[in-house]
Amino acid sequence: MQKIGVGLVGFGTIGTGVARILLGKREEIFRRTGQRIELLKICDKDITTDRGIDLPEGILTDNLSEITDNPEISIVIELIGGLEPARTFVLKFLEAGKNVVTANKALLANHGPELFDAARRRGRTIAFEASVCGGIPILSSIATSLQANRIESINAIVNGTSNFILSRMESDGADYADAVCQAQNLGYAEANPSMDVDGTDAVQKLTILAQLAFGAVASWKEIPRTGIDSVSAVDIEFAKKLGKRIRLLATASRGENGLALKVSPTLIPESAPLAKVRDAFNAVEIIGDFVGPVFYQGLGAGERPTASAVCSDVIDTAVGRTALTFGAVRMWAADRPALPLLPSSEIVGGAYLRMTVRDQPGVVAEIAGILGRHNISIASMLQAEAAEQSDSACLIILTHPAPEGALGTAVEELDCLEFNLAKTVRLAVGAPDTAV
Amino acid sequence: MQKIGVGLVGFGTIGTGVARILLGKREEIFRRTGQRIELLKICDKDITTDRGIDLPEGILTDNLSEITDNPEISIVIELIGGLEPARTFVLKFLEAGKNVVTANKALLANHGPELFDAARRRGRTIAFEASVCGGIPILSSIATSLQANRIESINAIVNGTSNFILSRMESDGADYADAVCQAQNLGYAEANPSMDVDGTDAVQKLTILAQLAFGAVASWKEIPRTGIDSVSAVDIEFAKKLGKRIRLLATASRGENGLALKVSPTLIPESAPLAKVRDAFNAVEIIGDFVGPVFYQGLGAGERPTASAVCSDVIDTAVGRTALTFGAVRMWAADRPALPLLPSSEIVGGAYLRMTVRDQPGVVAEIAGILGRHNISIASMLQAEAAEQSDSACLIILTHPAPEGALGTAVEELDCLEFNLAKTVRLAVGAPDTAV
Repeated sequence: MQKIGVGLVGFGTIGTGVARILLGKREEIFRRTGQRIELLKICDKDITTDRGIDLPEGILTDNLSEITDNPEISIVIELIGGLEPARTFVLKFLEAGKNVVTANKALLANHGPELFDAARRRGRTIAFEASVCGGIPILSSIATSLQANRIESINAIVNGTSNFILSRMESDGADYADAVCQAQNLGYAEANPSMDVDGTDAVQKLTILAQLAFGAVASWKEIPRTGIDSVSAVDIEFAKKLGKRIRLLATASRGENGLALKVSPTLIPESAPLAKVRDAFNAVEIIGDFVGPVFYQGLGAGERPTASAVCSDVIDTAVGRTALTFGAVRMWAADRPALPLLPSSEIVGGAYLRMTVRDQPGVVAEIAGILGRHNISIASMLQAEAAEQSDSACLIILTHPAPEGALGTAVEELDCLEFNLAKTVRLAVGAPDTAV
Repeated sequence: MQKIGVGLVGFGTIGTGVARILLGKREEIFRRTGQRIELLKICDKDITTDRGIDLPEGILTDNLSEITDNPEISIVIELIGGLEPARTFVLKFLEAGKNVVTANKALLANHGPELFDAARRRGRTIAFEASVCGGIPILSSIATSLQANRIESINAIVNGTSNFILSRMESDGADYADAVCQAQNLGYAEANPSMDVDGTDAVQKLTILAQLAFGAVASWKEIPRTGIDSVSAVDIEFAKKLGKRIRLLATASRGENGLALKVSPTLIPESAPLAKVRDAFNAVEIIGDFVGPVFYQGLGAGERPTASAVCSDVIDTAVGRTALTFGAVRMWAADRPALPLLPSSEIVGGAYLRMTVRDQPGVVAEIAGILGRHNISIASMLQAEAAEQSDSACLIILTHPAPEGALGTAVEELDCLEFNLAKTVRLAVGAPDTAV
């Protein structure tokens, strides 16, 4: 019986969960897979903090070469996060002939092509299920279970922090800042949650999904992105009045002229499964040409769900499944057939516009005129008193689907209107067919 | 480039979908997997009916030996359904050295041990994703993606016909017979839907899930089973009043003394994801010790979703993934560690009892007395006028969790009461923690 040695780099929250599984379930995994998977070394800068887990003597090290130079270790798990030194380390692991498992979406969204090419050149693999939606097996579903399908669209809640904040605003009527505080107090948001609430985390995960499902090569910085930091309690209320809920959606949609990618708080019908995803849950709705709509929901972050995904990748790598899938899917390979990206200005979708305007005659006519000149047609309009000033009004406009470019220019013009008292808030409106 | 020849046996609805994918997407599948998968023969008794699909000349045959004796065919898809001749055919395919892909849950639930042993003896594989929940990749999730978890429980809607009927009763207030008619008219139920509505289909799928997820060897005939044919419009109404929905759930739950398996119409909180599964959709909620709750929803039947699952299995078999998973999971192997089954009398759960009784003094006391003697404690009770007779009343009792054995005996005694005008209807009440 051959042993498969594993090294773990980065002993934080998720690393602790991974160690719990690989050490605590060693016999169970052997019975279930026929493989002796042995966690041999854990490397971290900090080897003194107690993580509340019993470790075999000598397993912990702050010397990376104890992993890279260890011939018994064939799989290395990268859990340090961020770009550097993670990128350099992963290249080193591949160079040393190790297969890599990672949960690092930022790393893949920024350096995917380089890392996967390095792996292919070395005849090694990178497994990354945990990088998107933690415990939801969405990447393996796309890569294998749905492989007979042409994927038509993906609508996903991939950032648990944002979803927690939005669902607290929805259930408690909390304003944005209060909900962020709640999320921080409960451990769902970090002290500085900017990468979560400004949509960066979501757009990086979307980059990975777009490459896997559509072969699309997207730079995350170029994908249109709005975070939940633009959503106010009043938007949640208006959405409710319209029979809708607001969720931060990462969407990928195949069209005749290319793939449309976008991250935005999006108004979706309250009956849609995505509208019912609460708290820190993640969810993904995929539509395939044969399978139709498939919906997944689960915990997208945290020690245990993420460790579950990491360890599944470790086992897949140990038994050889990863090599087969890795070889077939060819992530970011230069010759992989790619669906072209639709330029962001041409992405078509409905918009929700909230304006705070001086309450005076002619306002609506002027706004409607600007929208009309950009061929944006109004689906409905609501007016309410603005809370702050009695001589101002809050205007909500829902548009029919229009190109992102036209909407952007129109909103710029709206923001220059003399009677406009605040920057226009623009959210997306989900396609009506977004419903499992 | 080696070609992988495929034979298809059974050219009905699903077979047509499979042919559409394997013939129509040949190049796409090659690009995506690097494998030349060629559908070489389709065998059916009926080779004259037009299925609305263009077939290469000579592909259709009514002679099975053109598949079994064809050395170019290494994978055979069995889509004839039922027990015989499917069982004999599958044994023949394995005997001839073919790998098998099947969507036949009845076959596996009845002859799983024999077929999988035959496959192992021959060094061949059986892939069966399509046998449970059609397009939802639930079996591969359990076998691979969730493999680092100890599965704690599965709650699943696995019969689309039953779900369609229940959700029509719920939305239209239709009575059972009307809803069955609607389902038949819309093609969601067969002319004789008895295997769907009496829970047989669900319990057979549960047998497969229980073996895969828990190693449990269950005979489907011994699993406690109630179908939706016992549900009336009045039950749907009462459930609504209690803030609940009724769904036909197949449940598997790990306890200290063994695995509890059950199929029953079940009252679940209206906020639970399973309660929101409408029409002919299937859904599965799995709780793993690390991943927590994961929820899947998709189409469980029909030409295209089922063909999607079948073809994914064909590709997995062609690229070698099936062999790895098959070898690790060892379905129904005699030496596979098995969780023992809890005797059905010891399965504990809450019950919903609906009695139609003569409206006379002492009735409630006598009923409560019987339940009390069996240590069944009443959680709540509702009384309503029975529609048919003015001197009768309808009594709804929700019990706290109690053993199946005690509940069964108590209901037998209730049914013998002189003032009891109809057989007591007994449904299950879901555990309060059943909620993603």
